[in-house]
Amino acid sequence: MPQLRKNPITREWVIIATERSRRPSDFSHAEDTSPTAGLEYADNCPFCPGHEDKTPPEVLAFRKNPELANGDGWWVRVIPNKFPALAIEGSLDRSGYGMYDFMNGVGAHEVILETPQHNKNMATVDHSQAAEVWWAIRQRMMDLSRDPRFKYVSVFRNHGKIAGTSLEHPHSQMVALPMVPGDVMLEIQGADAYYSYHDRCIYCDMIRQELHFGQRIVCETDDFVAFEPFAPKFPFETWVLPKKHSRSFIEDGEEQIPGFVTVLQDVLGRIGRCLNNPPFNYVLHTSPFEAEKEHCFHWHLEILPRMTIAAGFEMGTGIYINVTAPEDSAAHLRAANPEPAESTEDEAKAKKTVKVHG
Amino acid sequence: MPQLRKNPITREWVIIATERSRRPSDFSHAEDTSPTAGLEYADNCPFCPGHEDKTPPEVLAFRKNPELANGDGWWVRVIPNKFPALAIEGSLDRSGYGMYDFMNGVGAHEVILETPQHNKNMATVDHSQAAEVWWAIRQRMMDLSRDPRFKYVSVFRNHGKIAGTSLEHPHSQMVALPMVPGDVMLEIQGADAYYSYHDRCIYCDMIRQELHFGQRIVCETDDFVAFEPFAPKFPFETWVLPKKHSRSFIEDGEEQIPGFVTVLQDVLGRIGRCLNNPPFNYVLHTSPFEAEKEHCFHWHLEILPRMTIAAGFEMGTGIYINVTAPEDSAAHLRAANPEPAESTEDEAKAKKTVKVHG
Repeated sequence: MPQLRKNPITREWVIIATERSRRPSDFSHAEDTSPTAGLEYADNCPFCPGHEDKTPPEVLAFRKNPELANGDGWWVRVIPNKFPALAIEGSLDRSGYGMYDFMNGVGAHEVILETPQHNKNMATVDHSQAAEVWWAIRQRMMDLSRDPRFKYVSVFRNHGKIAGTSLEHPHSQMVALPMVPGDVMLEIQGADAYYSYHDRCIYCDMIRQELHFGQRIVCETDDFVAFEPFAPKFPFETWVLPKKHSRSFIEDGEEQIPGFVTVLQDVLGRIGRCLNNPPFNYVLHTSPFEAEKEHCFHWHLEILPRMTIAAGFEMGTGIYINVTAPEDSAAHLRAANPEPAESTEDEAKAKKTVKVHG
Repeated sequence: MPQLRKNPITREWVIIATERSRRPSDFSHAEDTSPTAGLEYADNCPFCPGHEDKTPPEVLAFRKNPELANGDGWWVRVIPNKFPALAIEGSLDRSGYGMYDFMNGVGAHEVILETPQHNKNMATVDHSQAAEVWWAIRQRMMDLSRDPRFKYVSVFRNHGKIAGTSLEHPHSQMVALPMVPGDVMLEIQGADAYYSYHDRCIYCDMIRQELHFGQRIVCETDDFVAFEPFAPKFPFETWVLPKKHSRSFIEDGEEQIPGFVTVLQDVLGRIGRCLNNPPFNYVLHTSPFEAEKEHCFHWHLEILPRMTIAAGFEMGTGIYINVTAPEDSAAHLRAANPEPAESTEDEAKAKKTVKVHG
């Protein structure tokens, strides 16, 4: 019997369609057949070192010699998107047109190059390199938060063509927005409503309940936990959250990044092994810049594998049909342990603190 | 400069990204290379006439001899989905599990076979055949509305693999749900809020404004209008609405179907010619069964071409980046006039009443 489940935060329903139940091996996706996919360096890649003149000038880079801006020698580099969805110059000029509202598309759209190596990704770089990426992201978020035109920064990653990547070189993106996006507002309103009823954070309660029952947990450390949400829209959807209440990645991120990256790399490795490097998006959800302190929120990262198609039903109702129960996907991910391989001391140190529920 | 536009009904923002602007010929999509795509009859198709034993028994069929149920000779046939997302038997059994809510996945999931001919579709069948399809849809909706477990029926069509079709034979689907879907509720709440402020229907006001300005109109008849909405999520998104206020397709559909089908076929033909038979979904939006009479709604059909990918940004914010301004897509669709070809008298009669704005 299929089950209808409600996301307790957004109050959105999903259908867990057991009749159509699918195991990891039932999902197929196009293999990446690009000739440069396996190369450490690609001649024609604008993001590879030595090609810095093919991108707009960097807004931030971590490199040994800061005087060599826009040359190579960097290990993380942030650049404006060459084809930005929003423009950084200008004022909002809010206007009406009859019954319609619009404003200038003012915002920032930046690209975070996560490593000089073309064939690495967030799961396979060293722990310290992954942490550097998130430090760069946080630094850019802090800078953008000082621009009074912006209310929110969305940080996201597209992996694989089906998930919207056009360039192979490992990169994340961020978009600064002059409004709080509807989907984030829905979560904040849900968390606020729960708080006003229970005087507790709904995410903290979810973490407690998930850890107590355990069947949807993927892995945890002392500081972070990854689980499959009760009402996931996508098969193998996975959330990573700090265990301690923390509303904002900007406010609390600095100390949390090493612990966050440990769990993030572990989970991405499991998803990659379990589903044969599937296309996915991940998205950071955090408090808006100007959120009043009494707003209740709990920052987290949502990882959304893209192995199924949202069709007319999803488009017309907002209700997603999910063919894999999260209890099953969590069990598969727990079983997808890392292969015993040589790892750097740093990685080994980070990994050994990750607990996996049996 | 990109533009941020707000959907006046749902209050969702979209980004009209003029920097990335795309014309119809810039959109590419995989050609349908199936060997049976062009055939009037396909041996291996469970929906072609003569293969009625390969589907569950029909719940409705239009055929000359009703005694020959589940044989061939039908022109429209409705069957339960063989792999239903929701199950027709059982009670809802609403339950809680700690902080989570769920219920049995009770619902109906039916497939409407739109023609016996494998290679036809809603744009290319005769006007009278298209009307028969919508009469069958309305009849099934009326039947399902009498089941006290159901609150809404979502009617939708997936065209092309990227839009979620797995079987080629022309068919629509309907899913009866034990709740009003979130996306429909959002529209109803938006329409209600507008009504309580203005004492007018927001859809009626949109129609008036669109007809007055004209730049987003695709075509119209005396009774129906098709336009590109001011804040579309998808390039070439098109809405078809009755001009006269009408909350429910079930209540008013019977008289409206011939006029609705005239505009629907005209619009689908334009989209197919303009974009080279693109993948698309369309979805009927109508009043929930039990909606109190004072709820303000205006039924309509939303056509959503699927030529772009919703990536991490859309997934994390709910804000869609649309690379084609609706004023441009409307102009392209107005220009995509039918080729002068032999048409049946019935088609000619229907088509000649469609007005296209210059």
